[in-house]
Amino acid sequence: MYNYRAGTVWDSGRAGRIQGDDRLAIRVGTPQEFGGPAGVWSPEQLLVAAVDSCLMSTFLFFAERSGIKVHSYGSTTAGRMDKTPEGLRFTAMDVNIAVVVDENTDVDKARRLQSKLEKYCPVSTSLRCPVILYLKVAVREDHKDG
Amino acid sequence: MYNYRAGTVWDSGRAGRIQGDDRLAIRVGTPQEFGGPAGVWSPEQLLVAAVDSCLMSTFLFFAERSGIKVHSYGSTTAGRMDKTPEGLRFTAMDVNIAVVVDENTDVDKARRLQSKLEKYCPVSTSLRCPVILYLKVAVREDHKDG
Repeated sequence: MYNYRAGTVWDSGRAGRIQGDDRLAIRVGTPQEFGGPAGVWSPEQLLVAAVDSCLMSTFLFFAERSGIKVHSYGSTTAGRMDKTPEGLRFTAMDVNIAVVVDENTDVDKARRLQSKLEKYCPVSTSLRCPVILYLKVAVREDHKDG
Repeated sequence: MYNYRAGTVWDSGRAGRIQGDDRLAIRVGTPQEFGGPAGVWSPEQLLVAAVDSCLMSTFLFFAERSGIKVHSYGSTTAGRMDKTPEGLRFTAMDVNIAVVVDENTDVDKARRLQSKLEKYCPVSTSLRCPVILYLKVAVREDHKDG
């Protein structure tokens, strides 16, 4: 069993701060379209960020276990929230992942990590909505030895 | 329909940065117990933070609609992740909310917002696991007019 904690303190208006042990606090507020301030993270966006970054963490774990040499990793997640009969809910998340691996790496093996991500990312599998992954793996093209 | 986006870029080891439009980037990493760095937010903790802060945002929304004058709001969420037959999953979240309302506010009305939070917080209702709320409402005791 693993435990994760975070706390929120309201400042004013529709904004506050999230604190977690010895981490840097994060300013947070209701999304602008619901009356919150500009330029701060919203809870909805943090949910999307949790999914996006957990997939990175999961990818790095399996890549290491599979001997895949990652050169770079970047991803973007778009989460969709809809009005449903039960209220606002996230109904889908689309994740685009772009990975570059080193030349001496089995690219197909890296691509096959997609199914591991789909099964074992603990944040995205904890959501009710489908999380659809698009994983692109490329091989590093520039040679260190010129 | 509402869309929320976030992106992650890997830096090194088990750590990277989360970016979201014009927000401050957040350093993120695998939890320490899984080989990540100390002192940065983990995706798991960000999920908990998203739940915790979304409940604040939802509370403030309904409080305003109900004419409840909030003096202070603080909350803490503990998320529990377990090994399940399908892999690691969040299995429960417990949220403790402490609200202080102004003297001229209907305390019972404030307490009844709990059912609104349970139904309408878009982040916590998007999770598979139960999110259990403990809402304490107190009345502000110090008088401005001394």
